[in-house]
Amino acid sequence: MQVDHIGIAVEDIQVMLDFYKTIGLEVKHQEEVPSQGVKVAMLPLGHTKLELLEPLSEESPIYKFIQKKGTGIHHVALEVDDIEKSLATLKDKGFKLINETPVQGAGGAKIAFIHPKSAGGVLYELCQHS
Amino acid sequence: MQVDHIGIAVEDIQVMLDFYKTIGLEVKHQEEVPSQGVKVAMLPLGHTKLELLEPLSEESPIYKFIQKKGTGIHHVALEVDDIEKSLATLKDKGFKLINETPVQGAGGAKIAFIHPKSAGGVLYELCQHS
Repeated sequence: MQVDHIGIAVEDIQVMLDFYKTIGLEVKHQEEVPSQGVKVAMLPLGHTKLELLEPLSEESPIYKFIQKKGTGIHHVALEVDDIEKSLATLKDKGFKLINETPVQGAGGAKIAFIHPKSAGGVLYELCQHS
Repeated sequence: MQVDHIGIAVEDIQVMLDFYKTIGLEVKHQEEVPSQGVKVAMLPLGHTKLELLEPLSEESPIYKFIQKKGTGIHHVALEVDDIEKSLATLKDKGFKLINETPVQGAGGAKIAFIHPKSAGGVLYELCQHS
């Protein structure tokens, strides 16, 4: 298993790039993911990536997250080989899932979130690239 | 630059290991870092690690973090080659630092935190291993 990316809620991707450029990071990929209500910028960082998440509207889960908790780390995404199998194992052991079946994420990946109540307050995303 | 680890505030390391074992992770190293007020468990994950942080006392910054924000992701640590140089670059550009000079962290690393106000709400640690 690998950390695929660390998702970070930001108000404005462009504004944050000054800081990230100073620590030596650059945007390599940008896209809108309307199904998740976000604009996404990926900044490669060693073997993983930072994923800056800017809300597309006030309906966006990221907008609501920022309103409630402020900007900052939103989730950690773990890359798995077989997302259906991982979800089944977690469900069998009684862990709570936000997505019991995968949904489509950035870059066409299959993704699913584990409920933070089952993960000590951390929002983990499982993802499987096509 | 690499993500050295993701620091996660927990109330009790032992209690959280059930979840982490289910997703396939194991503790490879455990130590107390009294200077940071924490017990630390490192769980290797691909090229990086999860660092579970349990407060040693009510004086611990991690205890205060949990009281204020609940358990969950506390910081992201970035491994740098020359921590003094990185800190000087950030300071030159006007970014606010929590530690203007490095302090000692887990495993004898030199560490310093960037102020979340300068990093969009994220608490970044810079670390340089000896």
